Amino acid sequence: MEQRRSDGSLRHLITLEGLRRAEIEALLDHSQRYVCLPGATPPTNRALAGKSIGNLFTEPSTRTRVSFELAGRRLGAEVLNLEVQLSSRAKGESMLDTIHTLESLHFDAFVIRDSEPGVVAHVAAHVAPHVSVLSAGEAHLSHPTQGLLDALTVRQHKGGDFSRLCVAIVGDIRHSRVARSAYEVFTALGVGELRLIAPSGLMPASGEFPVGKRHFTPETGLRDADVVMMLRLQKERMAAAEIPDGEDYFARFGLTQPRLRLARPDAIVMHPQPMNRGIEIASDVADGPQSVIRDQVRNGVAVRMAVLEAVARARPRPS
Amino acid sequence: MEQRRSDGSLRHLITLEGLRRAEIEALLDHSQRYVCLPGATPPTNRALAGKSIGNLFTEPSTRTRVSFELAGRRLGAEVLNLEVQLSSRAKGESMLDTIHTLESLHFDAFVIRDSEPGVVAHVAAHVAPHVSVLSAGEAHLSHPTQGLLDALTVRQHKGGDFSRLCVAIVGDIRHSRVARSAYEVFTALGVGELRLIAPSGLMPASGEFPVGKRHFTPETGLRDADVVMMLRLQKERMAAAEIPDGEDYFARFGLTQPRLRLARPDAIVMHPQPMNRGIEIASDVADGPQSVIRDQVRNGVAVRMAVLEAVARARPRPS
Amino acid sequence: MEQRRSDGSLRHLITLEGLRRAEIEALLDHSQRYVCLPGATPPTNRALAGKSIGNLFTEPSTRTRVSFELAGRRLGAEVLNLEVQLSSRAKGESMLDTIHTLESLHFDAFVIRDSEPGVVAHVAAHVAPHVSVLSAGEAHLSHPTQGLLDALTVRQHKGGDFSRLCVAIVGDIRHSRVARSAYEVFTALGVGELRLIAPSGLMPASGEFPVGKRHFTPETGLRDADVVMMLRLQKERMAAAEIPDGEDYFARFGLTQPRLRLARPDAIVMHPQPMNRGIEIASDVADGPQSVIRDQVRNGVAVRMAVLEAVARARPRPS
Repeated sequence: MEQRRSDGSLRHLITLEGLRRAEIEALLDHSQRYVCLPGATPPTNRALAGKSIGNLFTEPSTRTRVSFELAGRRLGAEVLNLEVQLSSRAKGESMLDTIHTLESLHFDAFVIRDSEPGVVAHVAAHVAPHVSVLSAGEAHLSHPTQGLLDALTVRQHKGGDFSRLCVAIVGDIRHSRVARSAYEVFTALGVGELRLIAPSGLMPASGEFPVGKRHFTPETGLRDADVVMMLRLQKERMAAAEIPDGEDYFARFGLTQPRLRLARPDAIVMHPQPMNRGIEIASDVADGPQSVIRDQVRNGVAVRMAVLEAVARARPRPS
Repeated sequence: MEQRRSDGSLRHLITLEGLRRAEIEALLDHSQRYVCLPGATPPTNRALAGKSIGNLFTEPSTRTRVSFELAGRRLGAEVLNLEVQLSSRAKGESMLDTIHTLESLHFDAFVIRDSEPGVVAHVAAHVAPHVSVLSAGEAHLSHPTQGLLDALTVRQHKGGDFSRLCVAIVGDIRHSRVARSAYEVFTALGVGELRLIAPSGLMPASGEFPVGKRHFTPETGLRDADVVMMLRLQKERMAAAEIPDGEDYFARFGLTQPRLRLARPDAIVMHPQPMNRGIEIASDVADGPQSVIRDQVRNGVAVRMAVLEAVARARPRPS
Repeated sequence: MEQRRSDGSLRHLITLEGLRRAEIEALLDHSQRYVCLPGATPPTNRALAGKSIGNLFTEPSTRTRVSFELAGRRLGAEVLNLEVQLSSRAKGESMLDTIHTLESLHFDAFVIRDSEPGVVAHVAAHVAPHVSVLSAGEAHLSHPTQGLLDALTVRQHKGGDFSRLCVAIVGDIRHSRVARSAYEVFTALGVGELRLIAPSGLMPASGEFPVGKRHFTPETGLRDADVVMMLRLQKERMAAAEIPDGEDYFARFGLTQPRLRLARPDAIVMHPQPMNRGIEIASDVADGPQSVIRDQVRNGVAVRMAVLEAVARARPRPS
């Protein structure tokens, strides 16, 4: 799936794969201008006035859906939550018929979350030239705006030179779209070292994450890390027999204060949420001074504003 | 149900029955000004600023609900989706109590879709004088804005003189509110010939559609038609034993390229959607050059803007 | 739960307990400016422009949710309906994580309805200093905006001197948050006499409603009342064995015309809705000239506008 227009500008955002470092940095710079401190009035403008954005979430989500909704509205767009099924079997209406119908109602962008690989790209490949498609999470494969908000969060705390940083991703990497998009964005930004810490059952297949150094215990993997990125156990993507026992998992991989002390003293702790407290992460770490988990959420709105504006800006005039 | 005010202006839109030709043409003219080509920015204004519109859809719908929602918002109104049951048994709250409650919250119009005949008119008969009620589809009986958008679509492609046109309606006419509203609007506009093509089990009762010429095969019915309007099989309104076998139905009534060649070479193909491809219509016809199916959707927003504005415009000042 | 800021201004509205008479009267005066007669265009302003309000309703509600939504929008705020579970067991995401996540998306206020006692106050105790929490109904305990709208309705019809009024609350007082908030507001306003009329099984525990005079029949309780406030049978809060037989209940406690004649000839009849007609109240009374039930709904939007503005107004600037 080509997500660019013929002039090279970004039309869709389906994956972070193939985005150049300068492009990502420009998106992060743009996002930074929309970051809003707690209690401040969020910046708004009319950049997308007259535009309509459709949210199509076929997997449950609150944070990401609301984040896109607020991002669109704060740019002056209409945002509608469209409760449609993208599966081709739903109500005898095929997925593309649904999309073309919505398109004919004059939506300028669709934000899609789907548990089936390829659906987002399939839609993007078939919409009219003036329509953009943004992934809000695709199966276990990709969650590009999450990758960008994670990069923005790291940059805010650790500066823009990623070559000096060691990032440790911990937990259910195998089933995580968050990890895959983080991997793409951090390697594009030239991260110094990237570690994958997981039990073997949750480690990705051997061909994936080629640059990542694999650690099977946090005791080796967390040492001197600058960034500790915890993941959620994606139980809904595991067979029953694969689901680890919570207590046992916490004992072996949960991020506790003692384990966190293995990382650098100024290491930051991230989690994409929702958290399983006491399974992936101890509450005192999640709420502790090194946690930047709420920054991630806050940055999410800023990143989505920047992305919505970026794909809209270069939109060609209708012929 | 009288849908006019005492001065003759349209207050509700429950049915197209009784609308004069000049009135329909004025609505179509008005709609045409809101038609927006693919990729263009939809026209917006503040004609309904300060107004609140409530969507009450008790049957599932995406296209029509979203279409009304966008229409209202593009005229500056607040549009709220109200998830209420209009059935009198729901939660001990009677239908009229619900309506009066919503009315007291200052809604100016209700858009209602309901599977029960008479509910829309019942509501319209009981709301306060300043409130309008618009049908978004009533049982198998009526879908007036669909009728108007179908007429607008025909007019765009075939011009305004309906007396020169032969319109063929094909398929499950018996259970179709789309067919009934199409019949009303096309006869009001003085259509030259109107044909009903269906197997006997899906043909309407003998008193209905008095002007329609009945054909029991597409081979006779489609000959030299200017407009071929396909209908969806309304399986949800049939007893299990009535539902035709899909393959067999397609073989006998599905619109294929060979069958379409029976019509005039410049005939247009319509379908209200959602389509059962391979049952009512072949995919190459649905997506072919004679198909105006996407125009219908596009015209839907324009027609609903015109209708919302029409019923609001003549609204009396409160006493 | 302290619902005030250190300067004494109202930050949250969880309960009417502890509100001073002058404060309540100021809120009612403010509300009165937002009251909109049937058919008039509702007043709007931009007092909350740039603010975002999240509706979190974990119990079904149409009237109150829509009322808050319209109130927020008519003040220029963004209002989002957030379909989240506040229960700590939902999807492994704890209630406070959910709230902090939403907070990080820059919501300025949460409107919460929950069936569990304490949830609203718990959230209020943990949100950031610039965030307000408004109860939209808490278990059987409290429904403060309903109390205010009831007081506003009485004041419109009976004037501001509550010491001259006798208010009779009739029905399922034991399970009613409406009754508890009514009790608080009427006693704060110095009501002359407050009567509780219920069968013993629906009478509140003996320590509650200390000022209320208990009557076990409407025949004694309604005599010369100025205000007759009927309640809904809260069957969903009763064990099956507790639920009274409808016909029997109506015979003993239903408000009929003959019973209403026991009250003062100019008595007003109230009901928070939804009504069980023929169980709590006869239809001719509900729709009769003494009924102010629709006024209550109308006043609900006005009161919620005033409350939203009141908690926003004194909000401290971010540090």
